[in-house]
Amino acid sequence: MEQVVHTMAHHKRPYAGYEARNFLWEVSADAKVATITLNRPERKNPLTFDSYAELRDLFRGLVYATDIKTVVVTGAGGNFCSGGDVHEIIGPLTRMSMPELLDFTRMTGDLVKAMRLCPQPIVSAVDGICAGAGAMVALASDMRLGTPQARTAFLFTRVGLAGADMGACTLLPRMIGQGRASELLYTGRAMSADEGLAWGFFNSLHDGGAVLGAAQELARRLADGPTFAHGVTKKLLLQEWSMSVEEAIEAEAEAQAICMQTKDFRRAYEAFVAKQKPAFQGD
Amino acid sequence: MEQVVHTMAHHKRPYAGYEARNFLWEVSADAKVATITLNRPERKNPLTFDSYAELRDLFRGLVYATDIKTVVVTGAGGNFCSGGDVHEIIGPLTRMSMPELLDFTRMTGDLVKAMRLCPQPIVSAVDGICAGAGAMVALASDMRLGTPQARTAFLFTRVGLAGADMGACTLLPRMIGQGRASELLYTGRAMSADEGLAWGFFNSLHDGGAVLGAAQELARRLADGPTFAHGVTKKLLLQEWSMSVEEAIEAEAEAQAICMQTKDFRRAYEAFVAKQKPAFQGD
Amino acid sequence: MEQVVHTMAHHKRPYAGYEARNFLWEVSADAKVATITLNRPERKNPLTFDSYAELRDLFRGLVYATDIKTVVVTGAGGNFCSGGDVHEIIGPLTRMSMPELLDFTRMTGDLVKAMRLCPQPIVSAVDGICAGAGAMVALASDMRLGTPQARTAFLFTRVGLAGADMGACTLLPRMIGQGRASELLYTGRAMSADEGLAWGFFNSLHDGGAVLGAAQELARRLADGPTFAHGVTKKLLLQEWSMSVEEAIEAEAEAQAICMQTKDFRRAYEAFVAKQKPAFQGD
Repeated sequence: MEQVVHTMAHHKRPYAGYEARNFLWEVSADAKVATITLNRPERKNPLTFDSYAELRDLFRGLVYATDIKTVVVTGAGGNFCSGGDVHEIIGPLTRMSMPELLDFTRMTGDLVKAMRLCPQPIVSAVDGICAGAGAMVALASDMRLGTPQARTAFLFTRVGLAGADMGACTLLPRMIGQGRASELLYTGRAMSADEGLAWGFFNSLHDGGAVLGAAQELARRLADGPTFAHGVTKKLLLQEWSMSVEEAIEAEAEAQAICMQTKDFRRAYEAFVAKQKPAFQGD
Repeated sequence: MEQVVHTMAHHKRPYAGYEARNFLWEVSADAKVATITLNRPERKNPLTFDSYAELRDLFRGLVYATDIKTVVVTGAGGNFCSGGDVHEIIGPLTRMSMPELLDFTRMTGDLVKAMRLCPQPIVSAVDGICAGAGAMVALASDMRLGTPQARTAFLFTRVGLAGADMGACTLLPRMIGQGRASELLYTGRAMSADEGLAWGFFNSLHDGGAVLGAAQELARRLADGPTFAHGVTKKLLLQEWSMSVEEAIEAEAEAQAICMQTKDFRRAYEAFVAKQKPAFQGD
Repeated sequence: MEQVVHTMAHHKRPYAGYEARNFLWEVSADAKVATITLNRPERKNPLTFDSYAELRDLFRGLVYATDIKTVVVTGAGGNFCSGGDVHEIIGPLTRMSMPELLDFTRMTGDLVKAMRLCPQPIVSAVDGICAGAGAMVALASDMRLGTPQARTAFLFTRVGLAGADMGACTLLPRMIGQGRASELLYTGRAMSADEGLAWGFFNSLHDGGAVLGAAQELARRLADGPTFAHGVTKKLLLQEWSMSVEEAIEAEAEAQAICMQTKDFRRAYEAFVAKQKPAFQGD
């Protein structure tokens, strides 16, 4: 398959054959469930300028994918992601001009935007270290499965920066509450797996050997569901972030009326009447 | 009492004698606490086009009620509500045009709006099945008391639809957190009573035989309180949903100054000075 | 030191020598950590017209402080604050005109605004009674440490008023969830320390004799950190309250790019390379 990332077009195309350069990209037999594995385990899977950009472009491209219905993100070797690499990212940043710095912070923010704007629900499988930009990738996912060893740190403050990075100050408070988010962002301390579960950051905890499978099983279940409707759910969860209740209700009235004209809605009804399980097809 | 629902006027009137057609409407001896009971227990109390519309009109009318101060919503026969009836609602929807579908989704959304816009605090007493539109009626209430048997499912996805229904994507994340809400809305799985309590969906759990009484007792306590002020609290909880902190503080400064000119505020002060319990009258 | 509160200027000045009239103001040896102690223990530290106004002016002034980096707020004698004094505040309010009432509610709201708008993170140490406006001072802080004896009540409804006071209807739902906040604001009941911890109101609980020390230790740790960046975190946590996710990400891109040009960012990088602990200086 030719490289599509930098020639993104408005027509649709399959992504099963996408050839990743900076991480692993694996796709289920039916090409519905993709798994991204950050894969520099000897460094705990740090992000680099190149991997940020490729992830951003990939999630932007997935808007036009004809095959992929859900995405799992994980890390190799017992850790999720150690964040921006100190030598490959932080060092160069200390020598950049303001326009160059803005280029960088906008690119990292664009990764979060792309993760929120693609229609595929994203499930992160988080073991071990989940730090900095890595914690933001987990936070930008739709759901997060963790392990008892997961240690999640929004540690920007530890390198002299603000907790305001890639949307942390808006995403984290809505996930775990304003007071807990404030503590994590001001202190940079790690959130334990138990805290993450109790606070609603993690949806569930699994053994280290089982978390990726559990995430893929959840992604599979969603991929076999009404995927057009899932994309609508995802879009509304984003759009209603700063709407009034009344505006949100009107937005949902329109969105759900659209979903009621899908074949999947009819399939569900007919399966119910026939006392069968519906076979959703995403259209 | 004559039928008032479809002749809603801007002058005020009592609702104690309201004659409900699609559910039970019972009012306390002093006409302050009303209880709505969804009452088709053999079908687990589903909603129909008629009951949606009557509930919407009733809550809209309660803005002008001279008597009712709080409302309890419950279901008959050990279940809260099974949502939109498959045969009476979902079947017809699969055959509707887009304008007809929008008519329907706007009507269901209007029920939620009416529940949020009436000044009476609403307490739901939830036992057994609480699903689909039923889960949204519980979510649109001000407070929720449950039982250990309560199973709450935003199961729209199970019938091929989006989780974006009646305001779910804005209301549920603010109630239980964005990550947990995402899981429930994407998967449609039932939230257990214990989860609902731990996550803040339920305010408390009670035995099945006691939950309605507990909800009515809470509603009674509020009805005997400063009910004008309660209506202000309710309005501000709605209006501040998408305000900045600064705007919200100014809105509350005006709202509370108004409350400081009520007789109830004076009654509380005088009772305190006299070392008595204040007798609030809602004016 | 001359009195600066009523001559607040746009140039900066030290606050270590600030002479408080209505509470205690104590400052660490290096003038970075200030502790405010509400100090009328025989009345459980109520607020008065004068103490509201002085607190408001002090927090407004701290925007221009050259020394103070974090603030701890606590109460003397085993209680945090009993709120507005019944005799000194509530009595007079019952006799005021609407313009006078608005003057008062805006002043109390301005205290919360000033606490959110100053760049110093604020840590409350809460023991015993924490009620009414006192509960709002705790809520307006960035973090809250409590004791098992802490009883926090947004009891406005008990004096005939709305739960909408000083921003409660926007701040409390984002801290503990919409459903729990609704219950506390409608009923005015006290939240126990255990509830406060489980719900995310308190960041941690400590023995009564240890909570102030723990709060000061946390404030010290932040004061020794990248304090310019902390101020950015605080500002963004406020500004993003009602932004869309996309707007928030762009705001953080700009904010973090600014932080990347601080010396503290370079100090952190150089310390890392030298395998040392960075010595942040807040510039």
